Amino acid sequence: MQVSREHELSDAEMSEIYSFAVQLGRQAGAILQDSLLTRRSDGTEAQYGTSQIPEELVMEEKLNAVDIVTKTDNEVEEFIHSKIRERYPSHAFVGEELYSKGSSKEYLVSNAPTWVVDPLDGTVNFTHCFPMFCVSIALVVNQKPVIGVVYAPLLNQMFSACRGKGAWLNETTRLPLLGSVGVGPIPKNAPKQCVFSCEWGKDRRDLPDGNLHRKVDSFLNMAAEVGGRDGKGGMVHGVRSLGSATLDLAYTAMGAFDIWWEGGCWEWDVAAGICLLQEAGGLITTANPPENIDAATIEDAKLGGRLYLAVRPAADGLEETARQGQERLVREVWRRVRRLEYSRPGV
Amino acid sequence: MQVSREHELSDAEMSEIYSFAVQLGRQAGAILQDSLLTRRSDGTEAQYGTSQIPEELVMEEKLNAVDIVTKTDNEVEEFIHSKIRERYPSHAFVGEELYSKGSSKEYLVSNAPTWVVDPLDGTVNFTHCFPMFCVSIALVVNQKPVIGVVYAPLLNQMFSACRGKGAWLNETTRLPLLGSVGVGPIPKNAPKQCVFSCEWGKDRRDLPDGNLHRKVDSFLNMAAEVGGRDGKGGMVHGVRSLGSATLDLAYTAMGAFDIWWEGGCWEWDVAAGICLLQEAGGLITTANPPENIDAATIEDAKLGGRLYLAVRPAADGLEETARQGQERLVREVWRRVRRLEYSRPGV
Repeated sequence: MQVSREHELSDAEMSEIYSFAVQLGRQAGAILQDSLLTRRSDGTEAQYGTSQIPEELVMEEKLNAVDIVTKTDNEVEEFIHSKIRERYPSHAFVGEELYSKGSSKEYLVSNAPTWVVDPLDGTVNFTHCFPMFCVSIALVVNQKPVIGVVYAPLLNQMFSACRGKGAWLNETTRLPLLGSVGVGPIPKNAPKQCVFSCEWGKDRRDLPDGNLHRKVDSFLNMAAEVGGRDGKGGMVHGVRSLGSATLDLAYTAMGAFDIWWEGGCWEWDVAAGICLLQEAGGLITTANPPENIDAATIEDAKLGGRLYLAVRPAADGLEETARQGQERLVREVWRRVRRLEYSRPGV
Repeated sequence: MQVSREHELSDAEMSEIYSFAVQLGRQAGAILQDSLLTRRSDGTEAQYGTSQIPEELVMEEKLNAVDIVTKTDNEVEEFIHSKIRERYPSHAFVGEELYSKGSSKEYLVSNAPTWVVDPLDGTVNFTHCFPMFCVSIALVVNQKPVIGVVYAPLLNQMFSACRGKGAWLNETTRLPLLGSVGVGPIPKNAPKQCVFSCEWGKDRRDLPDGNLHRKVDSFLNMAAEVGGRDGKGGMVHGVRSLGSATLDLAYTAMGAFDIWWEGGCWEWDVAAGICLLQEAGGLITTANPPENIDAATIEDAKLGGRLYLAVRPAADGLEETARQGQERLVREVWRRVRRLEYSRPGV
């Protein structure tokens, strides 16, 4: 399946796969939710003592204490994988848990139709019963996510998109959500008035010029008053950290967040979200500012590039098109953030 | 009503007021949700141009661009106020919007039964259709929040508590939520393994030793690897920022977050949440570390003190009681955070 020629799927095939993917997302989300409810009812009579943590919550340490995997992740991924194998035996599959068991983190998505799956994004949230977790299922063809399904069962939010068919909430409401202030033109003084979404991530090494410090410098620039931080202060309206890159992207597609900036996540974290965002009319490019910020062409982010800057869908303004507004905002963010260093394979 | 004697409400009175408060929370939440849906359907046909932002979303600038108030805030507060006036004419009322129209931010809660209300916490989220917003209603007697109702309509989460009756999710499931890893004993190596909730807040002044920098230093200490930051690295499992102090507290009561640390919010942001947290078995004290961290008595936070450190409910461990574990965690957080400067009246 590691072929480099261009692949084509007909409209009829795409529609069928899209329905399948949405149904699969609902089923996988239901397994996540059932697992939570089972945990809860098992514990009805007593608080857990140290030795009574239910088996589903026993976490194996992967990279470090922050990067955990639960039995549920593995079960849900195996469920999704088996359903796909049965229905589309010729398609390739890249899943977070399967991947993690391999020896490296090379980029393995070819041009052939490949399912890129995160069975449970926001694992820490899941283990804490915090509703910001989801299953993420994407079909990637010729390196482009063409179908994306993100389902957050506790939030009752099903996000779905298929190339050319738009992006949807619960299959009935088009994204971005009309009614959000985040669907109009990009504000003139952006990033002021914008909601900025970012994550602290797993790389917590206290290196003087490491990713953690570069991230925090960037967050601070985005948050500080206009004029502060040597002119870099962005005075964003709010800074949000949910602990789920997938939902960050879904909420950017929705218009709930205006900007998402992140380094370090993997293709399974973002593939479905990229499809949602692009179908909703959003833009995604690299997190790292180029040398010439004003003149650089703004290219789509590479799926496996681990560096992402997403800007919400926008309406045309009086003096610029939607795309011009989005590109203006990308450059305003680039002016305020530092370059991050994430490579492949890597941590 | 500004009397200083102790007030007593009978069990029967408390039960009646509790039912009233829960119903009021549901009604107020429904108004918030309807307002969102109306906005959405009004916009069905077209993206908003610059001049077409619906009236409900027109935001008046209060303190600065971050501190916004919408027409909906005012309407919902007036609804709640009128219902309370009608049913309990002798009770005092402190509401965010009414307060903001006054000339100062003095602390106005006496010992008499006082309703402390935030009609819409998470206004920025609300205007962006991001589900993390809620109504918050508390009854405070003798300076103690004795009834707390927090309702997040888009999340379908109704949190409620009444002194002596426990804290509840959707009136049927007791908090903290069994099934969360955040209900066991406080981890031995805490704050490692803990989910840390914090907010960037509204004070964005770029003063070298100002609140913004003190907050970010503290966040960084909590997040950095163990051994990093001159021994202050806490390597928390996750850092979360929702943009709603009220929901931060509700999720700490639930066990979804282990720690919430914040300065700068007001009594209407926290009154209901404090009742939820305490009834669930959590602890809330001041954000600011005392001089002698190891020896200091851990006292309850003052309602109007603007400085809060909350720790989730816990089970007894093998070597310490729940309360001992919580106090250990409080001291571990105090070791890693800086003192914040918020005063009354103030911004």
